[in-house]
Amino acid sequence: MSKRIVIIGGGDAGTYTLEAIMKRKEDVAITLLKKDRYGSVSICGLPFALQGIYPLKDIELQEPEFFQSRGIDYRTLTEVTEINLEANSVTIQTGEELEYDYLVIATGSRPFIPSIPGVELEGVYTVKDMEDGERIEVAMNDPGVKNAVVIGAGTIALQVAVAFSKNNIKTTVTKPRPLILRSMLDPDIASKVQKKLEELEIRFILGKETVAIKGDGDVKSVLIGDTEVPADIVVACAGMRPNVDLAKEAGIEIGESGGIATDPFLHVKKGRGYIDNVYAAGDCVEVIDAITHRPRLSMLASTCVTQAKVISDNIFGDNSSFDPVLSPTVANIAGLQVGSVGITSETAKRYGMKVITGKKEKPTKPRYYPGRKSMLMKLLFDAYSERLVGAQIISEDQVADRIDELSIAIRSGMRARELRMMEKSFDPSVALHRDVMADAAEDALNV
Amino acid sequence: MSKRIVIIGGGDAGTYTLEAIMKRKEDVAITLLKKDRYGSVSICGLPFALQGIYPLKDIELQEPEFFQSRGIDYRTLTEVTEINLEANSVTIQTGEELEYDYLVIATGSRPFIPSIPGVELEGVYTVKDMEDGERIEVAMNDPGVKNAVVIGAGTIALQVAVAFSKNNIKTTVTKPRPLILRSMLDPDIASKVQKKLEELEIRFILGKETVAIKGDGDVKSVLIGDTEVPADIVVACAGMRPNVDLAKEAGIEIGESGGIATDPFLHVKKGRGYIDNVYAAGDCVEVIDAITHRPRLSMLASTCVTQAKVISDNIFGDNSSFDPVLSPTVANIAGLQVGSVGITSETAKRYGMKVITGKKEKPTKPRYYPGRKSMLMKLLFDAYSERLVGAQIISEDQVADRIDELSIAIRSGMRARELRMMEKSFDPSVALHRDVMADAAEDALNV
Repeated sequence: MSKRIVIIGGGDAGTYTLEAIMKRKEDVAITLLKKDRYGSVSICGLPFALQGIYPLKDIELQEPEFFQSRGIDYRTLTEVTEINLEANSVTIQTGEELEYDYLVIATGSRPFIPSIPGVELEGVYTVKDMEDGERIEVAMNDPGVKNAVVIGAGTIALQVAVAFSKNNIKTTVTKPRPLILRSMLDPDIASKVQKKLEELEIRFILGKETVAIKGDGDVKSVLIGDTEVPADIVVACAGMRPNVDLAKEAGIEIGESGGIATDPFLHVKKGRGYIDNVYAAGDCVEVIDAITHRPRLSMLASTCVTQAKVISDNIFGDNSSFDPVLSPTVANIAGLQVGSVGITSETAKRYGMKVITGKKEKPTKPRYYPGRKSMLMKLLFDAYSERLVGAQIISEDQVADRIDELSIAIRSGMRARELRMMEKSFDPSVALHRDVMADAAEDALNV
Repeated sequence: MSKRIVIIGGGDAGTYTLEAIMKRKEDVAITLLKKDRYGSVSICGLPFALQGIYPLKDIELQEPEFFQSRGIDYRTLTEVTEINLEANSVTIQTGEELEYDYLVIATGSRPFIPSIPGVELEGVYTVKDMEDGERIEVAMNDPGVKNAVVIGAGTIALQVAVAFSKNNIKTTVTKPRPLILRSMLDPDIASKVQKKLEELEIRFILGKETVAIKGDGDVKSVLIGDTEVPADIVVACAGMRPNVDLAKEAGIEIGESGGIATDPFLHVKKGRGYIDNVYAAGDCVEVIDAITHRPRLSMLASTCVTQAKVISDNIFGDNSSFDPVLSPTVANIAGLQVGSVGITSETAKRYGMKVITGKKEKPTKPRYYPGRKSMLMKLLFDAYSERLVGAQIISEDQVADRIDELSIAIRSGMRARELRMMEKSFDPSVALHRDVMADAAEDALNV
């Protein structure tokens, strides 16, 4: 009999796992169960659709029929109500019980809704799925909507603020802490991103609590500290929380970060042992940080890509393990590409790590070649070993690939001296000879 | 007394060494001796000037006065006639003798001129320096010039062919061997570059000897095999040879590749010992290949960047060594970025190395995001260790940074499995989730 595989969740983790399994062209019976009515949707593409770069519907990469026509039992509008580990089955909202040989828990995450009075008012949105996108799109195109408040200052929050600003909506970004993009950037780098957004007339009120959302049915204003900011739309973008209720109810262990604990093969744990036919992937899973060696959440689609391969390998006996993560990340914020990998100075401090930093701003091409951009790079090295432990870059060009390059450098334990001496490919149309990376490493070494 | 440093040559190696020394702001007396009348010139920028992207004069990055006004004894139109190792001095064409505490030999390279009858005719050019650029520019703008032949099919040759083609000159590229860009690319990748150029109506006659250049004072045609190709301009671009005569006459050892042999600190050798105050850098130096561990030439400006740092470090007692090279390289050929690092399949074969290869072509962004390009990547792994030993990429975007990323991967001994599982930063405006690199690694592993 062919293997019966059940995947709970059709976000990035569920979809990538499904596709990694399909790629093997083995004789399997796959069921994917997801709550909403869409096929596979790239949520990372949502803010750019709101910015008007393409229609919102384009981010649905595959409709349900795509998978269904390929023999997948792909069920939308389907909620799993129970995981029965002993019976190797899951129960869905209709009461139907589906047996599995392998189960993949990819239940994702949900927006954290701060407990603010008025958060239930009409006009308060989150950014989690296609339906959220549709609601925000309708709201922001309402000519009566003049003012917006975005609660939160992570990448999605800022990208949504840019969308509002492009739509001539006066936008305020607020969070209780004083720094934006805090998990990615040191304050000296983050301040440059903030400045760029302030040039687009996005207003920041940082370091103040959002006290209340006010209105009369519809939202009318937001009280931030003692400032009342008019608001016709409010987006609560204050972080995501892993969806682990289903796993928890089944007795699966939840780690200290709040995500599902797994072994390196992504098997979940119950009691004293790991369950060798039940995997977890994506935002709901706890990962190990490659620098601090501590558990945390990753919440990146790119993490799902690797986890999907590991799970597919393991289901088919190839014995792959999932490594501790560096979580390289990049976000296009109003044309500025903001990238980060490894740890920030704040994380280093929190874990008692001493770091040395180097920083350099340089153009991406020689001065005679048209179209060059400026690139600002900050590198963090462990002070004792001089190994690279973090990198932050902002530029209008080339940031993703540079972050990935530094990711490999961190992963392989490269030292400041090696980065300083690294060979660099050169052509004046695309690069500089004496590159910003080597110079930032020199700056850290004081040579 | 301050250190007296003499640098022979003002190309990339000489200039970068000069600038690395200047950066230290130490009390030194530096003399740079160069043959032509220009300051520091970026020769890599020459073909793009011929293509009309900017004026030729822009590639002179610093005029002689720039260095002279900073206290450097920067002498143009100055030829060194002898190096006197015993006396620690060099003699120039006027007979003047300059003493040094440290000498840097950066005599560069010269074009290899094939011994073809007619090579001395008016209208036959090489591509080595600013004067060559000026001569070619004048010639190609002569309305009587309708046909060109480029002998050679390396990056500079092809970039010059593109310049001619853009100027509506009917251009033929020829070389005695059947493949273009042979030191960088495997035939399956090179053929795509050739196809792109053929679309621009550049004609290729490969695998045939150039028998004669014909004309009557001025060049009129080129006889390739038994085909006579009309030609008003001929560019001989059949490779470069290191300039080592001066070193050789001083008794300095020349390696098997034809470049000056050095130790890892870039000291030159005479008799049984290395000379600790005489360094060599740039195209005239023999390097060690990081994959084959054999001596070869590098002939890349990027090699000079690293060598300059090593020499400057060593002069000031910081004890740096120059590592075996991977020579990552990229060239913009008619908008197609062509990149390579490590060894090709041919080199592997020549050294008896068994390799496995993986290849994938993918877009650089999700299909919903505008402006994506296709990227073709080929990866070569050592068949036994599965370590990455070479990479080749063509795309209209992002090639340089991807080559540098793979350079670090080779340098740090990454294996196919690790590349397959490498995390990748993602934002739909700049990257794909399931990236071409991981897919090419999967292809090599047959997973």
